[in-house]
Amino acid sequence: MYKGGYTGKVLRVNLTDQTSKEEALPQEIAKGYIGGAGFGIKYLFDEVKARTDPLGPDNKLIFASGPFSGTTIPCASRMAVTAKSPLTNAVGVALTGGYFPVELKYAGFDAIIIEGKAEKPTYLWVKDGKAQFRSAKKVWGMKTTDCQQIIKNELNDQNVRVACIGPAGENLCKIACIINELRAAGRKGLGAVMGSKNLKAVAVRGSGEVAIADKEKYKSARDAFAKAMKESPVLYPQFSKLGTPMVVDHACAIGIFPTKNFSATGEYAPADKLGVEAQLTRNVGSEHCYGCPVACSQLKMAKAGPYAGTLTEGPEYETFFSFGGETGVENIDAVIAADRLADELGLDTISAGVAIGFAMELYEKGILSPKDTGRLKLNFGNDEAMMTLLRLMAYREGIGDLLADGTRAAAEKIGKGSEKYAMHVKGLGLPAYDVRGAKAHGLNFATSYTGADHNRGYAFQEVFGIPIPYEVDRFSAQGKGKLTKWNQDVRSATCDAPTMCAFLLDMAVPAIATQNTASLMEAVTGLKLSAEEVQAVGERINNLARAFNVREGFGRNDDTLPDRLLTEPLKEGASKGQFISKDELKQMLDEYYAERGWDIKSGIPTRKKLKELGIEYVADALKS
Amino acid sequence: MYKGGYTGKVLRVNLTDQTSKEEALPQEIAKGYIGGAGFGIKYLFDEVKARTDPLGPDNKLIFASGPFSGTTIPCASRMAVTAKSPLTNAVGVALTGGYFPVELKYAGFDAIIIEGKAEKPTYLWVKDGKAQFRSAKKVWGMKTTDCQQIIKNELNDQNVRVACIGPAGENLCKIACIINELRAAGRKGLGAVMGSKNLKAVAVRGSGEVAIADKEKYKSARDAFAKAMKESPVLYPQFSKLGTPMVVDHACAIGIFPTKNFSATGEYAPADKLGVEAQLTRNVGSEHCYGCPVACSQLKMAKAGPYAGTLTEGPEYETFFSFGGETGVENIDAVIAADRLADELGLDTISAGVAIGFAMELYEKGILSPKDTGRLKLNFGNDEAMMTLLRLMAYREGIGDLLADGTRAAAEKIGKGSEKYAMHVKGLGLPAYDVRGAKAHGLNFATSYTGADHNRGYAFQEVFGIPIPYEVDRFSAQGKGKLTKWNQDVRSATCDAPTMCAFLLDMAVPAIATQNTASLMEAVTGLKLSAEEVQAVGERINNLARAFNVREGFGRNDDTLPDRLLTEPLKEGASKGQFISKDELKQMLDEYYAERGWDIKSGIPTRKKLKELGIEYVADALKS
Repeated sequence: MYKGGYTGKVLRVNLTDQTSKEEALPQEIAKGYIGGAGFGIKYLFDEVKARTDPLGPDNKLIFASGPFSGTTIPCASRMAVTAKSPLTNAVGVALTGGYFPVELKYAGFDAIIIEGKAEKPTYLWVKDGKAQFRSAKKVWGMKTTDCQQIIKNELNDQNVRVACIGPAGENLCKIACIINELRAAGRKGLGAVMGSKNLKAVAVRGSGEVAIADKEKYKSARDAFAKAMKESPVLYPQFSKLGTPMVVDHACAIGIFPTKNFSATGEYAPADKLGVEAQLTRNVGSEHCYGCPVACSQLKMAKAGPYAGTLTEGPEYETFFSFGGETGVENIDAVIAADRLADELGLDTISAGVAIGFAMELYEKGILSPKDTGRLKLNFGNDEAMMTLLRLMAYREGIGDLLADGTRAAAEKIGKGSEKYAMHVKGLGLPAYDVRGAKAHGLNFATSYTGADHNRGYAFQEVFGIPIPYEVDRFSAQGKGKLTKWNQDVRSATCDAPTMCAFLLDMAVPAIATQNTASLMEAVTGLKLSAEEVQAVGERINNLARAFNVREGFGRNDDTLPDRLLTEPLKEGASKGQFISKDELKQMLDEYYAERGWDIKSGIPTRKKLKELGIEYVADALKS
Repeated sequence: MYKGGYTGKVLRVNLTDQTSKEEALPQEIAKGYIGGAGFGIKYLFDEVKARTDPLGPDNKLIFASGPFSGTTIPCASRMAVTAKSPLTNAVGVALTGGYFPVELKYAGFDAIIIEGKAEKPTYLWVKDGKAQFRSAKKVWGMKTTDCQQIIKNELNDQNVRVACIGPAGENLCKIACIINELRAAGRKGLGAVMGSKNLKAVAVRGSGEVAIADKEKYKSARDAFAKAMKESPVLYPQFSKLGTPMVVDHACAIGIFPTKNFSATGEYAPADKLGVEAQLTRNVGSEHCYGCPVACSQLKMAKAGPYAGTLTEGPEYETFFSFGGETGVENIDAVIAADRLADELGLDTISAGVAIGFAMELYEKGILSPKDTGRLKLNFGNDEAMMTLLRLMAYREGIGDLLADGTRAAAEKIGKGSEKYAMHVKGLGLPAYDVRGAKAHGLNFATSYTGADHNRGYAFQEVFGIPIPYEVDRFSAQGKGKLTKWNQDVRSATCDAPTMCAFLLDMAVPAIATQNTASLMEAVTGLKLSAEEVQAVGERINNLARAFNVREGFGRNDDTLPDRLLTEPLKEGASKGQFISKDELKQMLDEYYAERGWDIKSGIPTRKKLKELGIEYVADALKS
């Protein structure tokens, strides 16, 4: 049995009949899935039947922290939120940090499984092992920062931590997120899942502690990890000071910073307007998640014009893309203000920006008329229109209603060939990498179980040139199937499941990530896993998630990329001429499925592979 | 010596040389001035020399709570902030509630006296008897809600309470306020005093307790007070549910709700748009100050259009006037959003609204041209222009710069007869009572030591028809000198000094207010004062404050009202035909000075009166 790390308890609440119960966390789940997204996907596969309406009462929403959350292990106090995504109809996993995940552990639970649908707006109040259903009448309709504060006031405890939705989630926008502090479990529309359950917020508070299984091993594992972090050439010297948005300049330089809905990548690279030099004029300080010595999160404040004085935590690199490059908005203060506004409304900044950029391209091409947009001048670069559109999306007003479910749904409604400009995979809007210049990353977007997700198998080898596990050519399709499997499995095993910060893998300690996770697991929980077994946890997670999607009807045909990336070479910049040809994609997919031990024709996990991973029951489930 | 209530300690900090020291609170100050505004004015008179630049380092800023703050006495946990006002050059006192005042006591101090000027943006961190000067670089420029949160994060303690300024205070707008939570020490430009000292915020936290001198007497005094509160026909049945804005309907009904810069009072009474019925469609819940069972503060959220989802605590009655009636804005959601925006920018809602209404009247009369306003269409009722103007004032941009110091200063710059439309007394914009229909209230505005202030000697007899200490005719000038003295002294003695909520006097327990204060003083602090002695504290405060103003050059000539109120009768409504003639004002002033024992010609306190109040040293000071 595990001796530390885990609380060993899972809280299951049912909003329909307002009941809650405590369940034991089985050791096989702890050892087989580690935590976070691992737990989420395990419960999701086992408990949410095929073809469940993602916005119906039978979908489940799982908040799960990691085994090291709440310890002094750096950068480990995060959380995964999992549900069937209303945006993709596939597995929806989103990660977040801050302070909520730790408080959840201190409140006595590794995870909360939320079922059913409340009759009226409700929030869940979890304190020291006890759950209470409370009326959310007061906070319904409220923006996310105010909502958190008002709930703290109502509970008369300023140390409560709250994860909540904004108006976007309430209005079931399929690009709605969940916000805690100024952080988001952003993508896949999990905010709409909360909204569909009439669940405005989850508030947690606890006085518990996280036990350590072996204090000596803990000290040495922790020290080894901290040492590796210190040795990283970028983590403290750069990342700590600049955070993710430092990547803007680099991505522009290598020609993969997507601009104007991916129509102008390389031709238009706004590094001078949105890059580090400009960012530093707006940085006012940094914030950190619980126990994190890196504090990568840069607080920025808008300086001039109508946005002056607006603070945001971020914008992260992705948001500099989505509200900047993608929309052609060069005004850094507008990007800052849009980031905050999206957080307040509870809109995923990436999906929202991609929807806006999509609408802008349609407007410029005449596919959307001024009448369609309610006279909103949706030209690329119009920051005021962007701000207005965010509000309209969250409240589903006018053109906003059309875009509130992401680009795929919007294109289906608009027709007129607009699908060509809808930059998504499986319904999830593309993040901040023009993968025509980073082909493993492209394959990853095509195959990731959550759609085009920057938080799955991030190809840092291509983006940053880090030669781990080996050196690659970012323009080549060769060997990218194998690499992508490695990236996805290791990311799942060392980040998503133990809820360790992904930046550690991408930038800090990629060479030792699995061994690091294994050492920490043994020290903190007492569960012994080798580095290989840790990696197998990642493979298990990816297979189980894939199986969930297969059960929903997904197959090889869905593992693709927007047509633009497969047919239009980049016209300018350091990735000029590059695109992923359909042949290359086919070749990469064949290799990927082969590496995965999946059926090459269908992309379905084989019984053999599932059995090898100790989850043969999944094969039975797929068969029926 | 006092045995309870007080901490007995005053913190004196000097921002220039970054020093702090603890001083004993002398018993004669405790007994002679009770607390709050009493302490503030005592220290101000004694320590701030005549003609001190209010925005210079020699002005002092005093935060003082009351002797019952932090006990379980209802509605007693408030605070006065005192300085020489940059807006009026007279005594500046503003009151606020919430949680900061109690935390100040728990941190070990009855009051903080802030002197000097920091070289760089600074915030003061007071914890359990210790003061620290910290860099405010991170939060400088920040809006007030974010500022409070970021300071809590920086101090790693979510229970810290913060009073801070917004951009308006930093930019030395003379109508800037100080914000704690969503509450304001609003008027008299005290936010600019903080700004002039480079003091962004004061953060407090403590683990202390407030001792009770006599627990038996405490219980009975507390119970008697609570019983009187319960017996009030309005306090719980109405005020608790509706808060101050319930007065909108009543003020419209009796024809004293000022509209369109006092040009249309009675003709235009927007009770149907801004009154209780409309308010209830926006109420989402209530908030309360520490220990308050009334919870009058109504949370409102805007519902429709561009303001949707904006939450505010309030708007209070005064703000329904200033951003509603005064500006002719009928959109309740705009009033809600303007209230929140003003709080975030750190602008006093009353002064800001009055400045906007003034500008609107000038614009409609052609005194301000579209060129003057930067093409802003400043017609009455234009809510978008109002929102823009708030921002421009806080950042001193364009026409906003002109209005950022209030109507008097703006009129001086504009000229062209605009002074006629500047609705202020001593520079302080008129609050939400058209005193043409409430003449004691008018005399109070004319004579209050802070200018036209709704928080000094509020004539509830006229506004609500409460016959205490006797019945009055609101249209008559007869006997209003005596009444105003009573109102000012009792308000100072039972509200401003003990930092009890003024609503208790106006609406709940006026008949027993002085006895109540006396009983609580003895029970909590052990200091014995009769009801008469309590009232004498109020008189002492008013005399000392008057003496401060006299020393600054104020005299009888300054005790007046805007010309419009003295010459233009109300044209419609329940106060139709009413105005305060110059003769009536003269008659009321003569009576008032006589009742006060002040020289009738000059309005200066006599030595005899000062001696009688035990402050003959003040006469000496005035002589020199």
